[in-house]
Amino acid sequence: MDLTELSARLRARDVTSEEVVMGYLDRIKAYDGMLNSYITVCADEALDKARATDKRRASSPEDRRLSGVPIAIKDLIATKGVRTTAGSAVLAQDVPAQDATVWRRLAQEGAILLGKLNLHEFAYGPTGENPHYGPAHNPWNVSRIAGGSSGGSAAAVAADLTPASIGTDTGGSIRIPAACTGTVGLKPTYGLVSKAGVAPLAFTLDHVGPMTRSVRDAALLLQILAGVDELDPTTRKGPAGDYAALIGSSVTGLRVGFDERFFLSEIAGEVALRTDEAVSALREAGAVIKAVELPLIDEVARHQNVIISSEALAVHDEWLHQHGEMYGDDVRERLEAGRIYSGMDYARAHEFRLRFTHGMARIFADVDAILSPTLPFVATPIGERHVQLGSSQHLLRSALTRFTHPFNLAGLPALSVPCGLSTEGLPIGIQLVGPWFAEATLFQLGAVLEKVWPFAAPPLFH
Amino acid sequence: MDLTELSARLRARDVTSEEVVMGYLDRIKAYDGMLNSYITVCADEALDKARATDKRRASSPEDRRLSGVPIAIKDLIATKGVRTTAGSAVLAQDVPAQDATVWRRLAQEGAILLGKLNLHEFAYGPTGENPHYGPAHNPWNVSRIAGGSSGGSAAAVAADLTPASIGTDTGGSIRIPAACTGTVGLKPTYGLVSKAGVAPLAFTLDHVGPMTRSVRDAALLLQILAGVDELDPTTRKGPAGDYAALIGSSVTGLRVGFDERFFLSEIAGEVALRTDEAVSALREAGAVIKAVELPLIDEVARHQNVIISSEALAVHDEWLHQHGEMYGDDVRERLEAGRIYSGMDYARAHEFRLRFTHGMARIFADVDAILSPTLPFVATPIGERHVQLGSSQHLLRSALTRFTHPFNLAGLPALSVPCGLSTEGLPIGIQLVGPWFAEATLFQLGAVLEKVWPFAAPPLFH
Repeated sequence: MDLTELSARLRARDVTSEEVVMGYLDRIKAYDGMLNSYITVCADEALDKARATDKRRASSPEDRRLSGVPIAIKDLIATKGVRTTAGSAVLAQDVPAQDATVWRRLAQEGAILLGKLNLHEFAYGPTGENPHYGPAHNPWNVSRIAGGSSGGSAAAVAADLTPASIGTDTGGSIRIPAACTGTVGLKPTYGLVSKAGVAPLAFTLDHVGPMTRSVRDAALLLQILAGVDELDPTTRKGPAGDYAALIGSSVTGLRVGFDERFFLSEIAGEVALRTDEAVSALREAGAVIKAVELPLIDEVARHQNVIISSEALAVHDEWLHQHGEMYGDDVRERLEAGRIYSGMDYARAHEFRLRFTHGMARIFADVDAILSPTLPFVATPIGERHVQLGSSQHLLRSALTRFTHPFNLAGLPALSVPCGLSTEGLPIGIQLVGPWFAEATLFQLGAVLEKVWPFAAPPLFH
Repeated sequence: MDLTELSARLRARDVTSEEVVMGYLDRIKAYDGMLNSYITVCADEALDKARATDKRRASSPEDRRLSGVPIAIKDLIATKGVRTTAGSAVLAQDVPAQDATVWRRLAQEGAILLGKLNLHEFAYGPTGENPHYGPAHNPWNVSRIAGGSSGGSAAAVAADLTPASIGTDTGGSIRIPAACTGTVGLKPTYGLVSKAGVAPLAFTLDHVGPMTRSVRDAALLLQILAGVDELDPTTRKGPAGDYAALIGSSVTGLRVGFDERFFLSEIAGEVALRTDEAVSALREAGAVIKAVELPLIDEVARHQNVIISSEALAVHDEWLHQHGEMYGDDVRERLEAGRIYSGMDYARAHEFRLRFTHGMARIFADVDAILSPTLPFVATPIGERHVQLGSSQHLLRSALTRFTHPFNLAGLPALSVPCGLSTEGLPIGIQLVGPWFAEATLFQLGAVLEKVWPFAAPPLFH
């Protein structure tokens, strides 16, 4: 059951909000010991709100889209009165006075806060391992990472410890864990969803978006989340209309670009094969597959690193000076390493970004979307720092973000959808990237793949 | 006679292009010894082209807008086959293989290159004093600066050694010399005019625009210059229609904002009085004057300095290492000082820029334009580094750009128009700033002030 179906059942009164919340609290109790996906569970508050919702619904009609639906979100999204740790020790006791805009929008639609989900410390890492709250575990194999930074979100969505989550993505932090756990994750177009009240990592790269079990759920949540927010000067007006409008409609004639050199080099064989199957699935559905060459793609990582490092340091510099010892080694060292970059380095990275973005715009004159594997390999064992690909060893952090972070630099929308399992039973994800504000097209294409490889619940968590 | 009238006379065959070019060459010969406004005069080439134009026009009708009109431009705009020094020793012998887009567009309309105009070395300074080519002198008083960096352009336009010029503006480099010399200068909306082939100073702050003797000339040139250019990824499509369309039409009901605290503090008394008269002139013409408070305005200089320093260093770093001794002390020291800034500083400046830009957008929800003095005082003596304002001394460089550089940071269009003379006979300029792409409104308001204080030729150069 996905979020769409759950909210329909609630609206149809097939089930009460209290029953739903109780069900989730029971599952969290039973299963989260294995997954460590929650940092905070809002048991009593959620039950109170569920009962209040049920009472209100008993006496008056209620047509809000998420009325009575419990939702847990990544624990760097501010929730009024509920501590928001950002996965850090620094903010371990931080209780926001205001909701982040995204949570306010969900709550206005009737959503009930179920809890706050685990993440890489300050969202600064792609594995979801956290020195303060422990790693988020992958429901498909608990010795594996759930991916990061939104690892708790992905694990909880996959194992049905929440019907959906809201994550953030600065270099892949929604899409990487979605791919690791066989769930759906959307990094929307930069500026489409407000970041107000969300702990920043690198403000020109940060994106907030839905993490779900179905493509239609991602569209439903995006519909609620998107829109200009006076509190976030980077927000822009998206297209009018329903993001789900094209789901289920024919993709005949849609042009899908594939960069074979970039996306098939240094990746696991199984991922390459599955990517090829995804390409075939779209072709069979009528899409036209076109070879593309992503512009300047081999220079992206270097410049992206300057920007993320400089912007993250701008956020953390004062805290690092005041209580650097409260940071995990991993994140503190990465932040401190950002001190090597000069203003000139940033200026050059910014200029590169412009050229890269311009080049991507030209690509999208020829294709409606780009397809890639989300990750070069399946979820790695917890504790690893490096990964072997072919004959060479790579820093895991860089390898995990290789296919995702270019689209943060360009601010393009990117959707990760499940694409079945590897022979060892670990999920593989496919990424669809579109031109700015083309989320509806990504959902349309994603739905085609979803038909072939629908969401599957991990066996231990049925 | 302005550019518009000159090209009309050429089209009407009241005069030949050869006569016009000869006339300008004679004036340059007679007067440029006093002004030092030209670095290169294209005498023979211009005469050849003029004769060819006249010949072509004799046999076939010719309706290009600038057919046979000689124009000199700032010497950092690439001109194929004509050396383009950028006011530097480093590029003293640099002969571009291609025209800059802006010169190509003028030439396509029939303009003939008259010469290349003096500027602050690499455009990095607001006084127009140049250690390699000598200072540009102010035609109103040759012991005074013509302003910078486009000082040669402004001096030549004021003294009619060219009918118009194209300048560049990173912190005020079009508007400052326009104000110093009693001419018209427009810094267009960021991205409206291509920078391809123009030596960069700081690419996110650089703007290319017209420098003229009348408001309608600025509109005419903008019409030719504006438009998307594949060679400059920052260019954007401007509004359709004629930039001159509103010139002469009523300004009744137009809302003009004025920030009294910011624009009247630490400025010369005469400039304050003239600003007040300009406000009155617009009010009498029907405009509604509204008090505004520019957002975050006192923090602009600090962040702007990080951005300009970092971006300029990105351009010059390699040359500084290779032949730092070829730079003037002034510019070399300023460039080297930019090394203190970190990537974090740039990230913070970039974030500030976003907030400032957002704040300016809110201002323009309430007003159609903002009025200010262009400069806090009239043109200073050549050789000065500081300026006394009230009881305190200021760095001249910072004082000259105080009212201009915020609108580079926000990318807003800004027009400087003459506003008569001080008691010592030096020009005073008024700046009109609009929301993005509202150049037509600025021309409309500028034309009202122009009626009160029309362009006057400096007495020595009648």
